[in-house]
Amino acid sequence: MRLAMIGLGRMGANIARRLMRGGHEIVAYDRDHAAVEALAKDGAVGAASLDAVSGMLDGPRVFWVMLPAGEPTETTIAALLDRAGPGDVIIDGGNTFYKDDIRRAKLCAERQVAYVDVGTSGGVWGLDRGYCMMIGGDKAVVDRLDPIFETLAPGLGTIPRTPDRLNREGCDPRAEKGYIHCGDAGSGHFVKMVHNGIEYGLMAAYAEGFDVLKSKSSERLPEDERFDLNLTDIAEVWRRGSVISSWLLDLTASALAKDQALENFSGKVADSGEGQWTIHAAMEEAVPVYALSAALFARYRSRVDTTFGDKLLSAMRFGFGGHVEMPQ
Amino acid sequence: MRLAMIGLGRMGANIARRLMRGGHEIVAYDRDHAAVEALAKDGAVGAASLDAVSGMLDGPRVFWVMLPAGEPTETTIAALLDRAGPGDVIIDGGNTFYKDDIRRAKLCAERQVAYVDVGTSGGVWGLDRGYCMMIGGDKAVVDRLDPIFETLAPGLGTIPRTPDRLNREGCDPRAEKGYIHCGDAGSGHFVKMVHNGIEYGLMAAYAEGFDVLKSKSSERLPEDERFDLNLTDIAEVWRRGSVISSWLLDLTASALAKDQALENFSGKVADSGEGQWTIHAAMEEAVPVYALSAALFARYRSRVDTTFGDKLLSAMRFGFGGHVEMPQ
Amino acid sequence: MRLAMIGLGRMGANIARRLMRGGHEIVAYDRDHAAVEALAKDGAVGAASLDAVSGMLDGPRVFWVMLPAGEPTETTIAALLDRAGPGDVIIDGGNTFYKDDIRRAKLCAERQVAYVDVGTSGGVWGLDRGYCMMIGGDKAVVDRLDPIFETLAPGLGTIPRTPDRLNREGCDPRAEKGYIHCGDAGSGHFVKMVHNGIEYGLMAAYAEGFDVLKSKSSERLPEDERFDLNLTDIAEVWRRGSVISSWLLDLTASALAKDQALENFSGKVADSGEGQWTIHAAMEEAVPVYALSAALFARYRSRVDTTFGDKLLSAMRFGFGGHVEMPQ
Amino acid sequence: MRLAMIGLGRMGANIARRLMRGGHEIVAYDRDHAAVEALAKDGAVGAASLDAVSGMLDGPRVFWVMLPAGEPTETTIAALLDRAGPGDVIIDGGNTFYKDDIRRAKLCAERQVAYVDVGTSGGVWGLDRGYCMMIGGDKAVVDRLDPIFETLAPGLGTIPRTPDRLNREGCDPRAEKGYIHCGDAGSGHFVKMVHNGIEYGLMAAYAEGFDVLKSKSSERLPEDERFDLNLTDIAEVWRRGSVISSWLLDLTASALAKDQALENFSGKVADSGEGQWTIHAAMEEAVPVYALSAALFARYRSRVDTTFGDKLLSAMRFGFGGHVEMPQ
Repeated sequence: MRLAMIGLGRMGANIARRLMRGGHEIVAYDRDHAAVEALAKDGAVGAASLDAVSGMLDGPRVFWVMLPAGEPTETTIAALLDRAGPGDVIIDGGNTFYKDDIRRAKLCAERQVAYVDVGTSGGVWGLDRGYCMMIGGDKAVVDRLDPIFETLAPGLGTIPRTPDRLNREGCDPRAEKGYIHCGDAGSGHFVKMVHNGIEYGLMAAYAEGFDVLKSKSSERLPEDERFDLNLTDIAEVWRRGSVISSWLLDLTASALAKDQALENFSGKVADSGEGQWTIHAAMEEAVPVYALSAALFARYRSRVDTTFGDKLLSAMRFGFGGHVEMPQ
Repeated sequence: MRLAMIGLGRMGANIARRLMRGGHEIVAYDRDHAAVEALAKDGAVGAASLDAVSGMLDGPRVFWVMLPAGEPTETTIAALLDRAGPGDVIIDGGNTFYKDDIRRAKLCAERQVAYVDVGTSGGVWGLDRGYCMMIGGDKAVVDRLDPIFETLAPGLGTIPRTPDRLNREGCDPRAEKGYIHCGDAGSGHFVKMVHNGIEYGLMAAYAEGFDVLKSKSSERLPEDERFDLNLTDIAEVWRRGSVISSWLLDLTASALAKDQALENFSGKVADSGEGQWTIHAAMEEAVPVYALSAALFARYRSRVDTTFGDKLLSAMRFGFGGHVEMPQ
Repeated sequence: MRLAMIGLGRMGANIARRLMRGGHEIVAYDRDHAAVEALAKDGAVGAASLDAVSGMLDGPRVFWVMLPAGEPTETTIAALLDRAGPGDVIIDGGNTFYKDDIRRAKLCAERQVAYVDVGTSGGVWGLDRGYCMMIGGDKAVVDRLDPIFETLAPGLGTIPRTPDRLNREGCDPRAEKGYIHCGDAGSGHFVKMVHNGIEYGLMAAYAEGFDVLKSKSSERLPEDERFDLNLTDIAEVWRRGSVISSWLLDLTASALAKDQALENFSGKVADSGEGQWTIHAAMEEAVPVYALSAALFARYRSRVDTTFGDKLLSAMRFGFGGHVEMPQ
Repeated sequence: MRLAMIGLGRMGANIARRLMRGGHEIVAYDRDHAAVEALAKDGAVGAASLDAVSGMLDGPRVFWVMLPAGEPTETTIAALLDRAGPGDVIIDGGNTFYKDDIRRAKLCAERQVAYVDVGTSGGVWGLDRGYCMMIGGDKAVVDRLDPIFETLAPGLGTIPRTPDRLNREGCDPRAEKGYIHCGDAGSGHFVKMVHNGIEYGLMAAYAEGFDVLKSKSSERLPEDERFDLNLTDIAEVWRRGSVISSWLLDLTASALAKDQALENFSGKVADSGEGQWTIHAAMEEAVPVYALSAALFARYRSRVDTTFGDKLLSAMRFGFGGHVEMPQ
């Protein structure tokens, strides 16, 4: 198929490249002309403006928007909607908040433009490994775009098939290839959002556990209860036959193999929005999410040296017991 | 009554003083002679050794041990047990782990010595305000010591009586005066331990809430959603008719009245053992204690600049997304 | 002063009564005519419609809206705004989300109508005990309404004054009487919201702690480590001199004095919105709120028999270990 | 090598079988003679008593004890120690608390008997897939036993090697084959304990996340924000290229493929000790473990219909607001 890729950052450019490798034609646009030129060298048709993009596609046109969520995506989609006509498709492949998808899909529907949201996981590894995609939007439209998604997805590969799934009706065959149609517009980003919420929780579980291992050499402990453990080897052995093997553990093993002390990292950990949105969604649903929220809060806490709350704890302790603080 | 006070730190000395004010006679001992002399000036009979203490009491003798929990208390009680005889009473008024009480009470019982554990709350304010006491041990012995406990307790005072309690059978009348017999040896310290566990949780709730108030002026927020709140006034107004009024809030209001920024506090918060023991007890009972454990962990976290776990989070993020850390 | 009270539920009617006791004149309106008549018997001027209300006030008119947050409050304020003119004041005394206040205040300002938000704590006890109030809005307007707030507030009463506050400049003298002007419109409800978030956290701390006490008689434990504790007496003794005394503990002591087993309660615990909003605000500010969120989630969890997540845990355990579930 | 397997439950019997497949000779013992006979049919030498076991081995003898942790393991090891002599080796392959290992290793050392603790992960899948092993004990002894461990371990297999590990000195080559020597006695079970603590945390993250997905069809939500998601397909797609792929997710996908509603599971989730011990270890080290503890507490909570704490929350709410509980 021929489609436009708008936004040629790391994610957008790699998605475009994987599509071209799969035989699709890409009309490429970015505010940064150098990014357009770079992709043109790899075979894309470069465009100098959204109007130009629009002219280089045949109807029904497909625009894949791959920009930072929020204002950049919002204004670009508004601009595309001005240029789009009945039957055209706007795909938002970024990290958009799913309620924005629901709202935009309604706006698009008023002009008979289809809106498709695609949540992708795979990060920097996706170009070669393929992108795991969660897709929301009208079923007929998503089916029509299938050649795109099939190219981007990892495919069956070497990952063992789930035994109980094989002869089962009602299972979407696309899932085994690494992409699914989740439901109406917004559902793709919703599922991706929860994916990231889970990711935070998994990461926190490993982080806390390795902290318990690391601190087992602490001088707080009786001397005969201390162990000086080799975290690099422990991460490696857990990859091999243990219950907690995972891709995140693979990354942990790799990071620890480079430097067991992780001295290049300060431990100020960012969060990207999806973790917070997952907690918000859980509250709307009245679902308890103790572990996922703890994972998010640990990131907040990692970014400050002390909190006002901690100071207040000290102040109260001083108030009722005359306790002075710990030596620093 | 005449009794020995062994350990004349802040708590021991003040308890002795309140007892003397109430007409009791104190035989005072501490490794630090200056502490003995100071209390002797206030009317106590000073003793130079545990043997001397023992000789200055008539049988059945009452020894109140008020020392740091662990080794100091353990060895002193062992030494007293060597000097004690049938009918004598050893009171542990410190912050002992209740399982140590259970063990020691059995040892004492072998020699017909009574063991009583007293958990006290009230801190530096107890001398004047009275001590809230939770007592474990044999009922007959605790009843015999009642004059001591009644003197130490705050008494009915001006605190309103609980309406539904007034004409109710089975309610211990001592509770309204500020002390109770909780049950067998160990139960006093157990109840005091849970008291402290709750204290951690209450403190955390205030700390987190005031943090949310304080951070409402953050530049992270849209400008028209920021408030620059006066925490001193807020703490004060909550003392007056709100659902969350408490003594800890009184202390908070007082600390904030001194310095709204709490700049004298670094926010490295110690924990004293009881919080951890409460979590441990909860796990033995399979009781979920999300809030109490969170309160404890926040103190651990307050004492380190970063954790190995935080670094591992950053390392994983770098691994899957090439994310560099936040600017510091 | 003369003002209108719109919404005569338990809160609105009692606030109106306390105002009338203090010499103010109330024009009373509610969709339910019986509620209007009931208040008219206590001295209010009853009104049959919002138009009637409007006509019974002299300019600048003061409308106190005391309705459920959300749609009822929203539509009533919109209707009042249609009837209001320059200098009039609309007070929202309900449990409104503070961002709605910010939005409405802008709408009102366009018509030179003042908008004041009042968060109140005190519940069913406020009529006699007074209402603790957190007020947002334009300073001049709030100052003008001071007679109303002073009447509603508890006043200095018998609560001890905060020592370090007495001679301090910059402290709002109203705080000691139980009400404060927090800042611009929305800040009153924001502070009240955080108050409720803290309330959830405090309640959770007591709930978890009493659970640990209660379960100390569990047959899970070794027989010599079990205690059968009298929770009624423990709650009472903690009211008297302990660090964790509070009004919520007073309520706990009263409830346990009625029935130590709390058998009339099923333990399905509602939440009213503010707890959730507090977590949301904390996430916007990147403030870790482990204890406050745990308190909220425990309420969610209390309302379902099992969660899908629990079933998934069982399914995973069965998958890796062949573990069957616990006997039920 | 020739060694004794004592305890022929599912784990013990399968370990013995995998050892025999690898050419080792097994002397098999269990209190249950049927279990001994069953293994004898597969090639083991059956023994009728511990004395018989002892006689069937040549010195230095190797005893692998595979029994439930606690009393069964304790008494069996004590009995073996009575029968063992200098140079003999006792291996505890169960789920022993690591402090028991430290204590027992000292006892064994007094008689020049070596004590080795082996934590194993792999569950019912180990016989074919191999066991991931974490080993504690004297280095020379663990090295001598290497043929046993190499046979039991999964080996390099098809799992990709960690790139940064390949040419690195100081990395234990055994880790890539699925077993490591962690350190002194106790360290094997310590590392396995933390492994299980992490496992609880990972499982909780998936459980909470799938709960958020499942509840997105809740009638609590506005109709246009509901999605009726296919959890079976979502679990499958996440296995393929996503950041959160893992073996636990494989199991989740398999369980959901059998029954998306998981109706065969009640959701009463057991815990096996290691989760609790991990929290305890973390507290000794002062390491915050919010997510791991939340995972443990959710299991406690899953096993009761309501908690006393929940009832107390309702009682407090009734006390301050007259709130009645939610309809059930």
